[in-house]
Amino acid sequence: MKIAMIGFGNVGRGFLELLAARRETLLTDEGFAPKVTAIVTRHGALMNTDGIDLTRPIELSQSPISEDVAANIVDAAIAGADVLVELTPTNVQTGGAGLAHCRAALNAGKHVVTANKGPLVVAYRELAALAKEKGVQFRFEGTVMGGTPSIALGLETLATAGVRSVRGIVNGTTNFILTQMEAGKTYAEALKQAQELGYAEADPTADVEGWDAAAKVVILANTLMGGDLRINDVHREGIAQITPDMIAEANVAGKRWKLIAEAKRDGMGVAASVRPTLVPLTDSLAFVGGGMNALTYETEAIGPVTLIGAGAGGKATGFAVLTDVLKVWRGIQA
Amino acid sequence: MKIAMIGFGNVGRGFLELLAARRETLLTDEGFAPKVTAIVTRHGALMNTDGIDLTRPIELSQSPISEDVAANIVDAAIAGADVLVELTPTNVQTGGAGLAHCRAALNAGKHVVTANKGPLVVAYRELAALAKEKGVQFRFEGTVMGGTPSIALGLETLATAGVRSVRGIVNGTTNFILTQMEAGKTYAEALKQAQELGYAEADPTADVEGWDAAAKVVILANTLMGGDLRINDVHREGIAQITPDMIAEANVAGKRWKLIAEAKRDGMGVAASVRPTLVPLTDSLAFVGGGMNALTYETEAIGPVTLIGAGAGGKATGFAVLTDVLKVWRGIQA
Repeated sequence: MKIAMIGFGNVGRGFLELLAARRETLLTDEGFAPKVTAIVTRHGALMNTDGIDLTRPIELSQSPISEDVAANIVDAAIAGADVLVELTPTNVQTGGAGLAHCRAALNAGKHVVTANKGPLVVAYRELAALAKEKGVQFRFEGTVMGGTPSIALGLETLATAGVRSVRGIVNGTTNFILTQMEAGKTYAEALKQAQELGYAEADPTADVEGWDAAAKVVILANTLMGGDLRINDVHREGIAQITPDMIAEANVAGKRWKLIAEAKRDGMGVAASVRPTLVPLTDSLAFVGGGMNALTYETEAIGPVTLIGAGAGGKATGFAVLTDVLKVWRGIQA
Repeated sequence: MKIAMIGFGNVGRGFLELLAARRETLLTDEGFAPKVTAIVTRHGALMNTDGIDLTRPIELSQSPISEDVAANIVDAAIAGADVLVELTPTNVQTGGAGLAHCRAALNAGKHVVTANKGPLVVAYRELAALAKEKGVQFRFEGTVMGGTPSIALGLETLATAGVRSVRGIVNGTTNFILTQMEAGKTYAEALKQAQELGYAEADPTADVEGWDAAAKVVILANTLMGGDLRINDVHREGIAQITPDMIAEANVAGKRWKLIAEAKRDGMGVAASVRPTLVPLTDSLAFVGGGMNALTYETEAIGPVTLIGAGAGGKATGFAVLTDVLKVWRGIQA
């Protein structure tokens, strides 16, 4: 199997490290010996039809490539591969370059694995239908809860149980900030700490205003519950207005503020929201602290099932990409 | 697909109700139209090679059957089916009748689905090897955490993540008693309430002395972590010695008593224990109350992943049996 990777940040590095570290196990246990034939970024690309040597450091040029040339490189990378691993930066309004890459690969009859929320949020139905038409797999475990298998649990393991709603904490940065505020910090202090630790970006809008959580809840609504939402369909409120007084009042009332994302059936459709919510201490979600994520799937057959795990990290999300690539391989073998 | 069911208690009833209720969905979505050709108990049996009518109440004779006749009925039921659903009462020391039924069915080249812990605890390796030799499936999702997919998560979804240990609350009755003691009851009062509500048996030994949890941790150790333990290899302590004073002291220290089952790698092998443990309020397991169960899988690739859900109930465990039967069907189709 030949893999072309577009985008090469922390997740891409995590994925390639795992692939190198597990080379022998994958071959012995699964008969799986993938070659990475292309690594493409906006600054440079590595291509090798015999497979790039992953045991040596991957070094890419830092000179930007012109758009024309970049498009040709992308086309060539996809044409020479069996699977596209799409890891470019997320754009949840337009789908960004990632959406074009996914479309091109699926149209060319290539399997697609992505940890990029943009293509899913903007065009899940279209991409899933295209994959079905072309007889290829389209996988996206890394888009929600990082490496923790929230998609596999909802889409595979719990599918026959009938998922009626999902509700939980899907943004680690805001959860870290709220946890720090419970320990006595102000919002500004907690945000600064999150930025110093690398949890929050210099511009924290995507996290603190709930855009990241909204993108994830759109993905959950559309992939697990048959919804057809876009990001602007989500009722979205951030955490910037949470004050130390509100935290203290919640504490007295035996509750905690959490940024809760929820998708639930609403008549014929699915409704989704992201909002700061007072969670009682009787709810498991109240105790999910720091950078952890959690989702409660309300099912018809077996009631609520909660999954808790790390919600981010290049290595963990890279692992999600690896499991998806491995499922593509198993699917081809079957 | 023809299904023979041996044992017909709450789980069996739950399974058959789901099968009847989902008849159309299973046919439309999966092309799956199973027939239940036998329901066998110690008091009577129903057999119909065209499939028993599940839309009418299942009524079995209440007169005990002699052992000779019972053995012949079991043989005939297995011979006439593709899948054995084994749901007889559990015996974790000998494997009980369930072990003999599983052996007979696998030897005859039939798939086996069970929610009976006994055969797994006593002879998992033997049965798994036999199933492999005969090219049939051996599935047991309902043995741990009722309908909550603890086996699928550990054995399938998290397999490539490398499960190093599992730790959690796998007995709902003792967890209910401890939760009631935190609300101010004595051990005796809480046990009485559990018995009145039908959570605990008249003889509560299996639950309160940790035998049920020990059986489940043996199953987890042997199926997920390559262990080869028997029930007497588990370091086992029950909850009967927990006093209101101990509960109060834990509360002051910011901790809670939970009956924690754990299996972890220990040199070349796996060590397992069941013991009352002071769990700090920073651990998700501290907040799993009442009859809920929870397991934390410590993985190499993505750190800790916690699954929380109902741990018992005929309908939920019947659902686990249904998902296993459906996986057998999908495996045959693939």
